[in-house]
Amino acid sequence: MTEDERRAWAYLSRVAEAPNPRIAVLVETMGVLEAAERVRRRDLPDAKLLSATEARHGIDCAREDLEVLDRLGGRLLTPGDEEWPATAFGSFDGVDKAKRPQGYAPLALWVVGPSSLVEVAARAAALVGTRAASDYGEFAAADLAAGLVERDVAVVSGGAYGIDGAAHRAALSCDGVTVAVVASGVDVPYPSGHSALLHRVARHGVVVSEYPPGSRPCRRHFLARNRLIAALSGATVVVEAGIRSGAANTAAWAKALGRNVCAVPGPITSAASVGCHELLKNDKGAHLVTRADEIVELVGNYGELAAEPPRPRSEVDGLSPEELSVYEALPGRGSRSVDQIAVAAGMPETDVIGQLTMLDIRGLVTQQDGEWKVLRSNGQS
Amino acid sequence: MTEDERRAWAYLSRVAEAPNPRIAVLVETMGVLEAAERVRRRDLPDAKLLSATEARHGIDCAREDLEVLDRLGGRLLTPGDEEWPATAFGSFDGVDKAKRPQGYAPLALWVVGPSSLVEVAARAAALVGTRAASDYGEFAAADLAAGLVERDVAVVSGGAYGIDGAAHRAALSCDGVTVAVVASGVDVPYPSGHSALLHRVARHGVVVSEYPPGSRPCRRHFLARNRLIAALSGATVVVEAGIRSGAANTAAWAKALGRNVCAVPGPITSAASVGCHELLKNDKGAHLVTRADEIVELVGNYGELAAEPPRPRSEVDGLSPEELSVYEALPGRGSRSVDQIAVAAGMPETDVIGQLTMLDIRGLVTQQDGEWKVLRSNGQS
Repeated sequence: MTEDERRAWAYLSRVAEAPNPRIAVLVETMGVLEAAERVRRRDLPDAKLLSATEARHGIDCAREDLEVLDRLGGRLLTPGDEEWPATAFGSFDGVDKAKRPQGYAPLALWVVGPSSLVEVAARAAALVGTRAASDYGEFAAADLAAGLVERDVAVVSGGAYGIDGAAHRAALSCDGVTVAVVASGVDVPYPSGHSALLHRVARHGVVVSEYPPGSRPCRRHFLARNRLIAALSGATVVVEAGIRSGAANTAAWAKALGRNVCAVPGPITSAASVGCHELLKNDKGAHLVTRADEIVELVGNYGELAAEPPRPRSEVDGLSPEELSVYEALPGRGSRSVDQIAVAAGMPETDVIGQLTMLDIRGLVTQQDGEWKVLRSNGQS
Repeated sequence: MTEDERRAWAYLSRVAEAPNPRIAVLVETMGVLEAAERVRRRDLPDAKLLSATEARHGIDCAREDLEVLDRLGGRLLTPGDEEWPATAFGSFDGVDKAKRPQGYAPLALWVVGPSSLVEVAARAAALVGTRAASDYGEFAAADLAAGLVERDVAVVSGGAYGIDGAAHRAALSCDGVTVAVVASGVDVPYPSGHSALLHRVARHGVVVSEYPPGSRPCRRHFLARNRLIAALSGATVVVEAGIRSGAANTAAWAKALGRNVCAVPGPITSAASVGCHELLKNDKGAHLVTRADEIVELVGNYGELAAEPPRPRSEVDGLSPEELSVYEALPGRGSRSVDQIAVAAGMPETDVIGQLTMLDIRGLVTQQDGEWKVLRSNGQS
């Protein structure tokens, strides 16, 4: 890409409120240089495009924006780049634009950090949730993030306080890859209290924004940003969320994009889990997840199945109902005769003898002085 | 029912290990007196029936059993009684007996307590769970039980320590109806530490057993008992359960009987919620419940819907995306001109003026000295 082209992308990235699919079509039709030039000259065939670019067409700070990006060691990704997550963003084609007017791929992305976005998107899960997280929620986010990066799954989140921060921090502390998709410019740490954290994400993972440097976040940008978190992740996991939450919005984007939606359950007494429980109620289609393995199963390669949790075994596992009846008809201490066992089990004596023989073979009972008794698993009767 | 008939039922209730559908068929075919007489005389056409009654046919303690029952103020319910929950037990007809050999209605029930079993079963929910309940689990059981009885739903459980006990106790303390379906005789309090609690259930609700007085509980009886808990309840709610649990068995019965299965979520860090989360994972068909209302909706009359939990409202609810963009382009403090707002919102000035007018009508913004500012909800700008 020439420097002129780069500047044209940067100019177009700012000139209309993102996402604006008309800009993308213009670039596809006539190339980025011509598209930028036509916007500047107000030489546009489309009244809506004229209107969308009217307020900012005279503002050209592309050179300055790119200088800021260069100082951060970042790059401006566009659809032609190898690092552009084309497959992930392809899912926007299927989104119903009447219901979701923001349901378009971004025009370009401002990116800082060593991780390749296309590689990240091939194996990533979003961990999102409330800023007002409980201790439990932050623990769950950290636990899941650690488990994900251990299995080479990148952790995508939004850089906010609470769940987002806990997820990013745990991924970093396990030397994993984490992605912060932010609603401000990549040079505007938001919230400011996460300035150091976002700096670490940019150094070890990647910070991504659709908005040019200097942009301050606003509600509309947060909502548009959420669609990118969902698109870059094979699954969106809501760790904790109140009844109104941005996390639920990200989950809705994940669903619209055909991605897996997951939620972590919590105590029914916790307001911070109400949004998760709403997602998990019938017919909402969200997966209940309790372990990172279960998320890996959803975002990973075919056949990468979560291990079953270990189940305690009892010595009577696998006994037939009849064997169990006879076994339980034996006293806890001491012994019983076959006829006593028959009455207790409600079973004919001949059957009782058959079941006792089977239990003897299994090593569960033993005969002594013509009576039967339980043999403990330590071999003692 | 004559006293002879009553004794015949009591005799048959003990003579074979319950449930035994062949005894029920025999009674239906020839009446209870003749059926008992034939069993006693070994005059049976069916080798399996001969075998099932062989060990105990000579034991006739019906008179003593009924004396015990009378002393407790109880009654022996049989399918002919008005109080017999025929509709509830009718669901056993649909159970696959190859998979669930115990899937039959009981022959008769030993019952103590003032509540009518058929009335109870018309509007009841089972609250079941682990004996090793956490404080959270006991709180959840008590909270749900209190909410259920407040809505005139009877609380069915198994009288055990932990979740069962918390459910019974909360129902009693709210003057509600609670049912303990036990695996021992109605005169054998089990566990013995719940002797006083079971006594209170028998005085204010109802204690039910398929087994004659004096019977001690065993594993097989617990499993058979679980089917009655499920059958008597419109929904079975697992409040807390480990990975192996009787509660999961009750839930499986509920499913087999076409009843609703519900589970209460809990922290993913709690071993006592693992069984609940397993039930709630995809395609298991269990409902996630967090409030008694949601259970009432499942067991109650048509149209008895759970109220939506209150949702906090924000002053920007219901704004169009364009209105929201303009609203957010206004500064938190101070004011901005229309052209400044147009640049910030990425929108033509003419559109901005239109949106500002709408926001003014909504009472969200106000004009001052040719600039616009946010109007706070207290009416102050």
